[in-house]
Amino acid sequence: MKNKELYNHFNQYTDIDRTTFLEINSFFEEINVGKKKIIYEPCEKCNHIFFTAKGCLNLYFIDDRGMERTIQFSIENWWIGDFLAFYNQSPTSFYVKSIEASKLLSITYDNYEKLLQKFPKLESYFRQTYQIAYGAFQFRMMHMFKFSKEELYFCFTDHFPQFSERVPQYLIASYLGLTPEYVSEIRAKVRS
Amino acid sequence: MKNKELYNHFNQYTDIDRTTFLEINSFFEEINVGKKKIIYEPCEKCNHIFFTAKGCLNLYFIDDRGMERTIQFSIENWWIGDFLAFYNQSPTSFYVKSIEASKLLSITYDNYEKLLQKFPKLESYFRQTYQIAYGAFQFRMMHMFKFSKEELYFCFTDHFPQFSERVPQYLIASYLGLTPEYVSEIRAKVRS
Repeated sequence: MKNKELYNHFNQYTDIDRTTFLEINSFFEEINVGKKKIIYEPCEKCNHIFFTAKGCLNLYFIDDRGMERTIQFSIENWWIGDFLAFYNQSPTSFYVKSIEASKLLSITYDNYEKLLQKFPKLESYFRQTYQIAYGAFQFRMMHMFKFSKEELYFCFTDHFPQFSERVPQYLIASYLGLTPEYVSEIRAKVRS
Repeated sequence: MKNKELYNHFNQYTDIDRTTFLEINSFFEEINVGKKKIIYEPCEKCNHIFFTAKGCLNLYFIDDRGMERTIQFSIENWWIGDFLAFYNQSPTSFYVKSIEASKLLSITYDNYEKLLQKFPKLESYFRQTYQIAYGAFQFRMMHMFKFSKEELYFCFTDHFPQFSERVPQYLIASYLGLTPEYVSEIRAKVRS
């Protein structure tokens, strides 16, 4: 079955049979990339979101000093994109780049709207996906306020070993709002 | 019409007729409170989310030093609650408190599930609501990384005058991760 990852993920949250999925699948475009490839970049009208079928990516912007600042990571079964700009069909400042070789399923705004019209069960799927993602951001914000920089780093690596094993340290630093030098320092302190 | 605020909000994102709304309305409980009242507090199973029909509230946690740290504000037509803990029916560390006298429409987890089962159009309403809220958090995270503390304060007060007029400065400071003293200082600098 083609794009079984997405079929399985839909069926964790709603029920979509194989025949219906074949039709749904035609709304998506498969993208296969090697590592460190830019998949999406700032533009006037944010027209795509992506399902990560395989691999690992990050969403980031470039700050005034030219530094890449990671907002989010995405691994298998996560969606990645600028969800507000996509909703409003407005400009985005975000990039999406592969950290590992990745397989993505990309959907355009028009196809997304048609898909939801035609398969209302997917409204429930996306409602749950966004509800979880939104709630996770509230939780992350609490951690950012609650923890010292050092606690933040170890809390992240303890809670999300799947990221800390796959993502280079400088990107974890970028995601936590720390410098790579600071992360090296606290890692060295623990090892000593 | 009772709870017209919610009826109008539903109809910004989907279409619900008046007769259907009467039925939907019975799933909600109306809560009216004066200012500075705790509406929700940490518990073993997060069982409610709230629609703000009138007023202004904040969602916060209490840090190790006993300080209230604001994660979010809510004014008219916004939902407030711990959306991940509500989804998972797990413990929450968050409080919800009224900043002004407020009217809320509260829904329990069981009623929320029944509501979505019975009125699938509301899946679309909540999908859009969460998609926007999630995207807004991505945007907020970019601002937190991008701006200096001073820029963060003025960016917030410029972009959200509806909050800065209604919310005391110490709560804005709490929301931005600044101290009230620092906010007083930068405000004084601008006035001088």
